[in-house]
Amino acid sequence: MKIKLLIEYDGTKYSGWQKQKTQPSIQETIEIAIKTIFANLCEITLHGAGRTDAGVHALGQVAHFEISDQAIINKWKHNLKKLPLAINANMLDSGICILAAEEVSDSFHARFAAIMRHYQYLILNRSADSPLYNKRVWNIHSKLDEKIMNTAAQFLIGHHNFNAFRSSQFSASNPHRTISDIKVYRKDDIITIEVSAKSFLHNQVRIIVGTLKEIGLGKKEPEYVKLLLQNRERIHAGPTAPPYGLYFTKVEY
Amino acid sequence: MKIKLLIEYDGTKYSGWQKQKTQPSIQETIEIAIKTIFANLCEITLHGAGRTDAGVHALGQVAHFEISDQAIINKWKHNLKKLPLAINANMLDSGICILAAEEVSDSFHARFAAIMRHYQYLILNRSADSPLYNKRVWNIHSKLDEKIMNTAAQFLIGHHNFNAFRSSQFSASNPHRTISDIKVYRKDDIITIEVSAKSFLHNQVRIIVGTLKEIGLGKKEPEYVKLLLQNRERIHAGPTAPPYGLYFTKVEY
Repeated sequence: MKIKLLIEYDGTKYSGWQKQKTQPSIQETIEIAIKTIFANLCEITLHGAGRTDAGVHALGQVAHFEISDQAIINKWKHNLKKLPLAINANMLDSGICILAAEEVSDSFHARFAAIMRHYQYLILNRSADSPLYNKRVWNIHSKLDEKIMNTAAQFLIGHHNFNAFRSSQFSASNPHRTISDIKVYRKDDIITIEVSAKSFLHNQVRIIVGTLKEIGLGKKEPEYVKLLLQNRERIHAGPTAPPYGLYFTKVEY
Repeated sequence: MKIKLLIEYDGTKYSGWQKQKTQPSIQETIEIAIKTIFANLCEITLHGAGRTDAGVHALGQVAHFEISDQAIINKWKHNLKKLPLAINANMLDSGICILAAEEVSDSFHARFAAIMRHYQYLILNRSADSPLYNKRVWNIHSKLDEKIMNTAAQFLIGHHNFNAFRSSQFSASNPHRTISDIKVYRKDDIITIEVSAKSFLHNQVRIIVGTLKEIGLGKKEPEYVKLLLQNRERIHAGPTAPPYGLYFTKVEY
């Protein structure tokens, strides 16, 4: 039986989604909670739709796992609505919460079957910090022009070589990606950047945000984004925005 | 010289705004930070617009204090824009942040000169908890009808005896208050209740929210609010909603 989970988390105290040898990860925390419910009768491997980095949050991460033990299947097959509550009870105060669980067909895969991933990035644009948004937003003190940022962002839509917009540490894979939609808007002091793509490169959203910030401050023209897509050099793009402003919001299949 | 401060805080770890003998308060934390800046050359007493309870947050609390020491006045009079930064640097990780400071006339009083106070209350209306909204919302698992809650809320507008809507512990003062505006609306899973009045009774907003919740669950009709305003008995109103969903958002003078 294959089960799909919808997951929210506060990424602050984790090394990221993916299991690591020495540091706490979101994946491992959930795996342990699930195994506890199943009385450690089987191994559980969670496959997440997105391997979010340390400090990145999720409002709608999706993951799946399989169970082959027939006794466990019999027990939970008609009780799946209660599974999130049971998992959550085994990871209280973890900052992670399972929002929903459902059975899916064998062909489902949280990572490979995703057709669209949505992220949002929150910037608090005011001179003072915010205790209520602590570790939830990137605080930029100087005034940003969100309309100019939005104009610049539109150049990113489409199929491009995003080599300038990915971590220079991991440059082996194909640098081409397709951004389906991106928008930048303000409500009071909060600027939201929403980006959608089938898949993203490592740090892609955060480097896009860091670059749009430079443009919003007036340091570069909106057309600078077009140049970056052409010259493809990471060093000319903006800084990598901090992880705590980033939210993995939704996955479509 | 009289100085007005605009203040945001996360009320989670405080006993409330007002200074207490044994527990940390928001008022005292800020007073100590200000005194440190002024090298303890003078006593500082902060007067807040609202004495928020333990766990209640503020996005726009207002407070004032006076300085009589001429050397301090000379130093800061033309530098007031830098005062918030200086105060904040002396209370890092407090969960409190001064957003702005300005000089006000002698006739100003943060508490007594206020003509309108605005609060909002946030309910997360879904079956799962939210790690990202932890200690920021009241999580109600059963479906609430926010439209019926809004209908009920309208009966509260105007000048009434709110005895049913105040803490029964403190019943000495005048139970009459005037609610100028109240509205209830939903965005996705978040129900916001906004209330405005010149002044409020102790726990008034939280008991209003607790009562509207019962109505939103269908346990009472909207007209039940009218009955409560007539029979004036606290015991017939709803529970006091928890403090962590409540935000003191704005004060008008």
